[in-house]
Amino acid sequence: MNSGCFISIEGPEGAGKTTIINMLANELIKGGRDVVATREPGGIDISEQIRGVILKKENTMMDARTEALLYAAARRQHLVEKVEPALGSGKIVLCDRFIDSSLAYQGHARGLGVEEVYLINRFAIEETMPILTIYFDLDPVVGLERINQHRDHEVNRLDLENIEFHRKVREGYLLLAERFSSRIVTIDASQPLEQVFKEASEKIEELLQRMKP
Amino acid sequence: MNSGCFISIEGPEGAGKTTIINMLANELIKGGRDVVATREPGGIDISEQIRGVILKKENTMMDARTEALLYAAARRQHLVEKVEPALGSGKIVLCDRFIDSSLAYQGHARGLGVEEVYLINRFAIEETMPILTIYFDLDPVVGLERINQHRDHEVNRLDLENIEFHRKVREGYLLLAERFSSRIVTIDASQPLEQVFKEASEKIEELLQRMKP
Repeated sequence: MNSGCFISIEGPEGAGKTTIINMLANELIKGGRDVVATREPGGIDISEQIRGVILKKENTMMDARTEALLYAAARRQHLVEKVEPALGSGKIVLCDRFIDSSLAYQGHARGLGVEEVYLINRFAIEETMPILTIYFDLDPVVGLERINQHRDHEVNRLDLENIEFHRKVREGYLLLAERFSSRIVTIDASQPLEQVFKEASEKIEELLQRMKP
Repeated sequence: MNSGCFISIEGPEGAGKTTIINMLANELIKGGRDVVATREPGGIDISEQIRGVILKKENTMMDARTEALLYAAARRQHLVEKVEPALGSGKIVLCDRFIDSSLAYQGHARGLGVEEVYLINRFAIEETMPILTIYFDLDPVVGLERINQHRDHEVNRLDLENIEFHRKVREGYLLLAERFSSRIVTIDASQPLEQVFKEASEKIEELLQRMKP
C-alpha cells in the first residue's frame, strides 16, 4: 500500500544532520520529487503532548522504561498521522532520527537492552520500517568540539562525562549498522560537509533508481 | 527482594470491584496486616500526566497502539514509585486493574492481539507480576443493569452496542483465566456482594497462609 520511500537519518548532535537533511530535501525537490522532511514529534499534537511529559523539568523521577515507552508512543502517533499518509501518497519521507535512536541511546547506551527496546518499537511501527537508514558516524570528541565552537564554550568535566555516554551511543550505532547492514549505510561525518552531503545524496539516488518500476 | 504480596483485582464495571477492594483492605488491616490499595495512575504525578494525555477529549486521533503504549508507560511509573516500594517494605498491595485489563480490553476486545500487548507490558513490569489475580466474572448485561440502577437510566441502543464490546472483554478475561490458571482465580460476581467478598477473602487468606515462612 505504501508506494513512497521511507528514509531515516541517524547520528549524534554535531554531525550536521539537520543541515544535510535540508540540503537533501532541496535537491530532491529540485529533481521534481515530492518530499516530506520531518522529525518526531513533528507538530503532531498527541506526539507533542507526549514529548512534553518526557521533557518536563519536574519529572525527575521518570524511570528509563517509562521514557522508552513514551518515546515509542510518540513515534507511533507521528508515524500514523504524518509518515504513513505521506508514504501512502507516494512521497519520499526523510525522518531525522527513528527507531535506531531508541536502540542506540536507550537500548545500548542506557543499558535497557537493544532486544527489549526493539520489541516495543516494533509494536509501535509494525511493518513501516525505513527502507534506507543513513548513519552519520562521528567521534564524540569531534562532535563536541563542533558544538562548542558554535557556542564559544570550552570543554569541561561534565562534557567529558557526557563523552563516555556518547561513546556508548556510537558503539550502539556501529553494532546496529553491522546487524542491519542491508538497511543502514554508514557515512564518515568527520569529512567536510559537502562530501558528507554528496555521499548521502548518492545513496538516496541509488535507492530511487533501484525502486523505479 | 520483594517480601510483600502483590494481588491484582480484575473485572468489569458493575462487578463491585471498588467496594470489595475496600472491604478486603479493611479486613486485612484489622487482621494486623500492612495494606496498600491502589489503582493506576494512583496519584503518581508522571502517571497522572500520561493518563491526562490518554483521556484528553481533543485527542480523538489517538491510535490504539499509541494508547496501549501510554497505558504501559503509566503502569511502569506507578509500579516503580508506588507498588514496588510497598512490596519492598513487606506490604500487601491490592491493585484495582493491572496487566490483564490491557490484555482483555486492548489485546483481545480491541483486537491488537494479546501476545503483542503482553510484550509491551512485560517490558513495563519486568518480573513484578501479581502472585494472585482475582477476576470478578459477570455477564455484561447484568453489569449494565446494575450500573443503570444507580443512575436511574434505561438501557438504550448505545448501551447495547457497548454490550457487544464488553462481551469480548469478558471472553478475553476468561481466556486469560484459562491460560494463567495458577495465577488467576475466577469468582462469580453475579452472587450477592457478601458472598463475592467472602470468596475473595478466602483466596487471599489461603495465599497468605501458603506464603508464611
